[in-house]
Amino acid sequence: MIYITRRERFNAAHRLFRSDFTDKQNSEVFGKCSNPNWHGHNYELFVTVKGEVNPETGFLINLKELSLLINKVIIEKIDHKNINLEVDFMKGKFASTEVLSIAIWEQLDDHVKSLGAELHCVKLFESENNFVEYYG
Amino acid sequence: MIYITRRERFNAAHRLFRSDFTDKQNSEVFGKCSNPNWHGHNYELFVTVKGEVNPETGFLINLKELSLLINKVIIEKIDHKNINLEVDFMKGKFASTEVLSIAIWEQLDDHVKSLGAELHCVKLFESENNFVEYYG
Amino acid sequence: MIYITRRERFNAAHRLFRSDFTDKQNSEVFGKCSNPNWHGHNYELFVTVKGEVNPETGFLINLKELSLLINKVIIEKIDHKNINLEVDFMKGKFASTEVLSIAIWEQLDDHVKSLGAELHCVKLFESENNFVEYYG
Amino acid sequence: MIYITRRERFNAAHRLFRSDFTDKQNSEVFGKCSNPNWHGHNYELFVTVKGEVNPETGFLINLKELSLLINKVIIEKIDHKNINLEVDFMKGKFASTEVLSIAIWEQLDDHVKSLGAELHCVKLFESENNFVEYYG
Amino acid sequence: MIYITRRERFNAAHRLFRSDFTDKQNSEVFGKCSNPNWHGHNYELFVTVKGEVNPETGFLINLKELSLLINKVIIEKIDHKNINLEVDFMKGKFASTEVLSIAIWEQLDDHVKSLGAELHCVKLFESENNFVEYYG
Amino acid sequence: MIYITRRERFNAAHRLFRSDFTDKQNSEVFGKCSNPNWHGHNYELFVTVKGEVNPETGFLINLKELSLLINKVIIEKIDHKNINLEVDFMKGKFASTEVLSIAIWEQLDDHVKSLGAELHCVKLFESENNFVEYYG
Repeated sequence: MIYITRRERFNAAHRLFRSDFTDKQNSEVFGKCSNPNWHGHNYELFVTVKGEVNPETGFLINLKELSLLINKVIIEKIDHKNINLEVDFMKGKFASTEVLSIAIWEQLDDHVKSLGAELHCVKLFESENNFVEYYG
Repeated sequence: MIYITRRERFNAAHRLFRSDFTDKQNSEVFGKCSNPNWHGHNYELFVTVKGEVNPETGFLINLKELSLLINKVIIEKIDHKNINLEVDFMKGKFASTEVLSIAIWEQLDDHVKSLGAELHCVKLFESENNFVEYYG
Repeated sequence: MIYITRRERFNAAHRLFRSDFTDKQNSEVFGKCSNPNWHGHNYELFVTVKGEVNPETGFLINLKELSLLINKVIIEKIDHKNINLEVDFMKGKFASTEVLSIAIWEQLDDHVKSLGAELHCVKLFESENNFVEYYG
Repeated sequence: MIYITRRERFNAAHRLFRSDFTDKQNSEVFGKCSNPNWHGHNYELFVTVKGEVNPETGFLINLKELSLLINKVIIEKIDHKNINLEVDFMKGKFASTEVLSIAIWEQLDDHVKSLGAELHCVKLFESENNFVEYYG
Repeated sequence: MIYITRRERFNAAHRLFRSDFTDKQNSEVFGKCSNPNWHGHNYELFVTVKGEVNPETGFLINLKELSLLINKVIIEKIDHKNINLEVDFMKGKFASTEVLSIAIWEQLDDHVKSLGAELHCVKLFESENNFVEYYG
Repeated sequence: MIYITRRERFNAAHRLFRSDFTDKQNSEVFGKCSNPNWHGHNYELFVTVKGEVNPETGFLINLKELSLLINKVIIEKIDHKNINLEVDFMKGKFASTEVLSIAIWEQLDDHVKSLGAELHCVKLFESENNFVEYYG
């Protein structure tokens, strides 16, 4: 069993808030992350897949194909976008790094299988000091 | 003459657009950076000051004071904010990294003098691949 | 189950030595790391906690609170200090990165529980080339 | 149980190809990574070992010794070399990061035991965007 | 006057040698960098251009265009290639980082002018410990 | 004219204080950096030299020789040492990054000339947020 990781990046705006809260309540619970005029991040996404090395190719997976997949299914939908307003797989969801990591996992899981590997981990950096890991 | 640099960081939303353009025109000129729903970045700001080492303290400047200054004059006004809508020193300005670097210089210049040093460079990273330097 | 990591940093002096060894013995076993006049490091500390995402907040844990906790329980006691002489939770212990990681775990474990999460990993970099991980 | 990691680096040339393929076939399957005139990388190697902290030394393992071991068994054989042509432990093997990680594991495994620890993970970066982990 | 920098990357094989030297002489002068079977690097290229901010666009230069230019004129010709054998703008030249930086400058200089800016610096990292800067 | 930079690293303990101050006065002026029991850093040192590319070698300078020089003249004297107590070229000097950068310049200047290049800049990082540059 071997584990391969591909890094991709996206820049997006977001806001932490609950629609059943007033702006004042959101501000008390989520602080400046709840700014109604949004803020944003350079997100770094590490996608790790696992499986056996294919004796035919010497690869577990073609990393070019994994990169194309992540770009098609995730990056094109979220890069230079507003996570709360414009990203189909985040519709109706809370825009925290935790929830976003789980949503990215759900978007990728089946597609990774179709490449002949298994999704192992989605690791998402919101900043150099904060990151989330989700293993399904 | 010695040069000292302090790094600070802020996360903000922005959008590249001209109010005298339609959304369609803005999109043609500025591409996905003109998304009307905003996007955002983790900005990295490097402020370099220069001067003589103070023989009394062995310092050019107390870096704690420089950090406090940058936080008071820049970071508190822009961190977790929308650069186009909420930052007083960017009011009416185009929200590019170039223009933002110049505006940060103008905010800092006099204050650095009052600390006994001279502002030398404002270096601003928008991403790991893009940055701007302004020397006044 | 989701994993969240917060990075904090501290600068400290230390020395590798055993009080039942002579300086000569310490030097033979621990090399230049045993310099009686101390040396020091910029330590990077990654604290990973795990748990379920709280459906109320969309968070596992408020990272601001985790950061405050790490600062109160660890950073304020060790930053700009001598690990061998001044850090209460290292009293009488060998000042290696291994032992320090375990001591940091012991300091944090109960406090993380009180935030509603579980401590998963303490990862401590002594330099860009050397780091230790402890999982309890 | 504690985990310690040592980072080492090497620069090497390689090419992805199968000797039973024509250059045209290799190019179709492996793309520009199959360039017959070679290309190369700055590889970053992270070797993680695990075990109990030795109560005598306060160490799991002397990192200097681990570094010397990795240099003797891996770096001296592969640094500034052609992985396909000159590295004894890659003879007859496909020069992918996956296969290279497994080969490095096999080279190190017994030697790490002789230092009193157990090999836990070989992590190999081919670029800032791609890396492989192997756990035996 | 403002300075903007774009980072691009390429992976390539090379060898330091003079054709009028024997392999033994090359080895004596250039050490392991002269390995006849090549070695390689992940090069990081920082291209800095300077000029006035265009009041029409708020840009000095469209960084997308600068990136496309660097890719067309440099990266496509050198990425996953052998610098000594396959790169037209290095034909007959010594494949050191110094000479390569100057050659990249010469390739870019006129093209940057046609984008309405002036080339200021080519900075080329061969490794995390070594880099070259050329200002024309 | 071309500029080449070599990075080296050292770990050291230090303390900011003036011997004509009481501990209380030192503490008021220099804060926690004046801890009488010392603290320390992983310093990163970037030495930049300049000159013409030697047409004979294609080099400005052999970076191996520059690295050996920096190690002999600086690193061996300061790595794993106490800057205030044990470093000959800092004897009687204030142990700030500013003063240390100037002292490193003075140690290196003549030696760099003897390698056939000219010292251009000493850049010294005390932490990821603070660094000093000295150009003579």
